[in-house]
Amino acid sequence: MATEQPQTRSEFSTKGAYVHSGEEFTRDTNYIEDRITRDGTFPPGSPAPDGALAWPVEAGRYRLVAARACPWANRTVIVRRLLGLEDAISLGLPGPTHDVRSWTFDLDPDGRDPVLGIERLQEAYFRRFPDYPRGITVPAIVEEASGAVVTNNYPQITLDFSSEWSAFHRDGAPDLYPDALRDEIDEVNARVFTEVNNGVYRCGFAGSQASYDRAYARLWDAMDWLEDRLMGQRYLVGDTITEADVRLFTTLARFDPVYHGHFKCNRNRLTEMPALWAYARDLFQTPGFGDTIDFVQIKQHYYIVHEDINPTKIVPAGPDLANWLTPHGREALGGRPFGDGSPPGPPPAGERIAAGHNPLYPGDRA
Amino acid sequence: MATEQPQTRSEFSTKGAYVHSGEEFTRDTNYIEDRITRDGTFPPGSPAPDGALAWPVEAGRYRLVAARACPWANRTVIVRRLLGLEDAISLGLPGPTHDVRSWTFDLDPDGRDPVLGIERLQEAYFRRFPDYPRGITVPAIVEEASGAVVTNNYPQITLDFSSEWSAFHRDGAPDLYPDALRDEIDEVNARVFTEVNNGVYRCGFAGSQASYDRAYARLWDAMDWLEDRLMGQRYLVGDTITEADVRLFTTLARFDPVYHGHFKCNRNRLTEMPALWAYARDLFQTPGFGDTIDFVQIKQHYYIVHEDINPTKIVPAGPDLANWLTPHGREALGGRPFGDGSPPGPPPAGERIAAGHNPLYPGDRA
Repeated sequence: MATEQPQTRSEFSTKGAYVHSGEEFTRDTNYIEDRITRDGTFPPGSPAPDGALAWPVEAGRYRLVAARACPWANRTVIVRRLLGLEDAISLGLPGPTHDVRSWTFDLDPDGRDPVLGIERLQEAYFRRFPDYPRGITVPAIVEEASGAVVTNNYPQITLDFSSEWSAFHRDGAPDLYPDALRDEIDEVNARVFTEVNNGVYRCGFAGSQASYDRAYARLWDAMDWLEDRLMGQRYLVGDTITEADVRLFTTLARFDPVYHGHFKCNRNRLTEMPALWAYARDLFQTPGFGDTIDFVQIKQHYYIVHEDINPTKIVPAGPDLANWLTPHGREALGGRPFGDGSPPGPPPAGERIAAGHNPLYPGDRA
Repeated sequence: MATEQPQTRSEFSTKGAYVHSGEEFTRDTNYIEDRITRDGTFPPGSPAPDGALAWPVEAGRYRLVAARACPWANRTVIVRRLLGLEDAISLGLPGPTHDVRSWTFDLDPDGRDPVLGIERLQEAYFRRFPDYPRGITVPAIVEEASGAVVTNNYPQITLDFSSEWSAFHRDGAPDLYPDALRDEIDEVNARVFTEVNNGVYRCGFAGSQASYDRAYARLWDAMDWLEDRLMGQRYLVGDTITEADVRLFTTLARFDPVYHGHFKCNRNRLTEMPALWAYARDLFQTPGFGDTIDFVQIKQHYYIVHEDINPTKIVPAGPDLANWLTPHGREALGGRPFGDGSPPGPPPAGERIAAGHNPLYPGDRA
C-alpha cells in the first residue's frame, strides 16, 4: 500500500495524543509490507516494496491476530470466513481494549494467546523488529514457529487471501476480487477508504471545529454517494459480494453503535439511510459477515481506549441492535451473493461470538 | 420547591467537577425561593419558605433572564409566550456558553444586557446576596430598578406566571395549570422531572459505569411510560396543552441534538419513538413552543461548556433537524391545544430566533 505521509501520531497514543489543536487526523499508513504469496515470491507486476520479503502460503504456518473490535482487523476475519481459510490460518483474538503500548490477549486463559504464548501483541512485533517504532496494530499475521510478525499491511492481507491462498479455499468460496472487476473495486475501495473507513476517524479525531466541519462534510458527501449507488444495485460492484462490500461493511456495522455519537458522525444514523441500512442488514444476515461482529467489544474498544474524547470511559448502553435482523428486502434487486459458489457454514466452535454480543446470538446484552 | 439534599456540585463547575468517580449526579435544588404574587403576599395555603419574600406583580418591573440554551429557562420563555406576558415582563438573553462563574450577556451589544447594564448575570445575584454561594443559574427574575435577583426558583416561576400574573395574560391565553387537573399535572411533572428532565443529566454526568447503567435504565423506563401514555392521547394531561407539556417538551427538543450522543441516552433517538416524536413535533409546530428553540445555541451550550465529557469542545454538525416540520398527524387524537383560547401571535421583533438556528427560520444552518 502506498505510503501517504510519514507521521508519528497513531491510534495507539492515549490521552492527549489524538487531538492536536487545529490539526486534522492523519492515519499512519506505514506498514510491514511483507506478503504471503503462492510461491513465496512477489508476483509478476508487483515489485517488492523496499526491504519487504515474500513468504510462501502454507497451511498451519501462520496465525492471524485480529481483535473483534477493530474494523481493519474485522475485514480479514470476514474474508477468512467467506473463503473458508479457517483450517489453513489460525485466529488469535486480543481483547477489545489496549493500553498505550499494545493490544493484549486479556480474553485468553492466563492472558496469553494459546498458540503464540504471548500476553501482548507487541512481543510478536519486537520478535520481528526489536526496535519497532510504530503502533502495534491489528490485523497482524504472525509466523507461529518464530512468533514474529510477517505483515500488518491490512489492505494487502485480504487481497492475498483471495488471490494467493486459493489452493486452500473451501469448495464454493466466492471470488471476492474477480479479475474483470478489479479496476472498479479498486476505485470504489479508494474512495470508501479515504472518505468513509477513515472519514469517520477524521471526524472523531479532528483537532478543531473547522477541521471537524470539513471532515463531516466529506463523510456525508460520500455517504450520500453510497446511498445513491446502492439504491439500484444490491452490491457495490457487480452482482455478487466482493472485497468492496467487506471493506464498507465493517464501518457500517460500527456506525450507529460508535461513530454516530463518539465520533460525532451524526447527520443521520445509518438506520435513517434506507438503501445503506438495508444493504448493511443484507450483509449482516449473510453467513461470514454478521457472525464476525461483536458489538459489545466494538463499543468497549472505542469508548474505553479513546480517553481524549471520552474521559469518563463510560460505554453507552445503546443503541438497540435487534433491528439488524429485520427483513431487508434487497433480494428484489437481484444479485447472487456468492455468485456460482455457496455460503460458508457456521463459524468453528472456538470462534463464535459470545451470547448477548450480537443479535444473532441472543443473551442478556445486545 | 422542596430541598432534596444540600450539596456543592453544580452544573456550573467546569473541568473535573461534574463527574466524581463512582458517584451519581445530584442536582442542586436549593434556590432563591422568593415569589412574585398577585398581591405581594404568599397565597393562603402556601406558607413562605424560611427567609423568602413575596413581591407584587407589576408590569414593567421585572426582567426574566433566560438563556435559549437552557432547558429550565426555556420553560419560562414558552409559558411567557403562551400567556402573552411579553409586554409585562421583559426578556434578557445570555449567550449559550458560560464560564465557571456565570452566564454572560455576550450576544448583546458591548456584551451588556441592555436593560440591566451588566455583563455577567452573577452581578445581579451579588446585588441581592453579596456572598451568594451557589450556581448562577437561569432562569432568574431580576428587579429592573434594583438590578437584584428576585427568584431563580424555576418550577415556581412558570406556575406563578399562570396563577399570579393572570391580570396581564393576553386575550385567549390558555389555562396551563387548571384547578381541576393540578393533582394529575403535579404527579406527571414529578415523574418527568426526576426521570426525564433530570434523568438525562444523570446519564451524562454519571461517575461510573454502574451509575450510568442505572440511570439509563431509569430514563428508558420513563420514556417507555411516556410513549405508552401518548399513544392514545394528544397531551400529557387532559385534552389541552398544560404546564406538563411545557416541561416535557424542553427536554424532548434537546434529545437528539444533545442528550442522545453527549449524555449517552442512546437506546433510541427521539425520532424512533413514534408517539413521543409525533407529540414533540405537534408541540414544536404550535406557536409558543418551536419558536423559542435555538438548536445552534443548545448544541453550543452543552458541547462547549461540559469540558469534562467533551474535552475537544467540538460541536457536532448533526443531526439534520428539518424533520421537526414534518406532519405529525396528532390532530386525529382530538384535543384542543388552547382549549377555549387561541394561539399566541408571532414573537416580538427582538425575540426571534436567528435564521438557520431552527427549521422554522431557514438559513445556512439547522
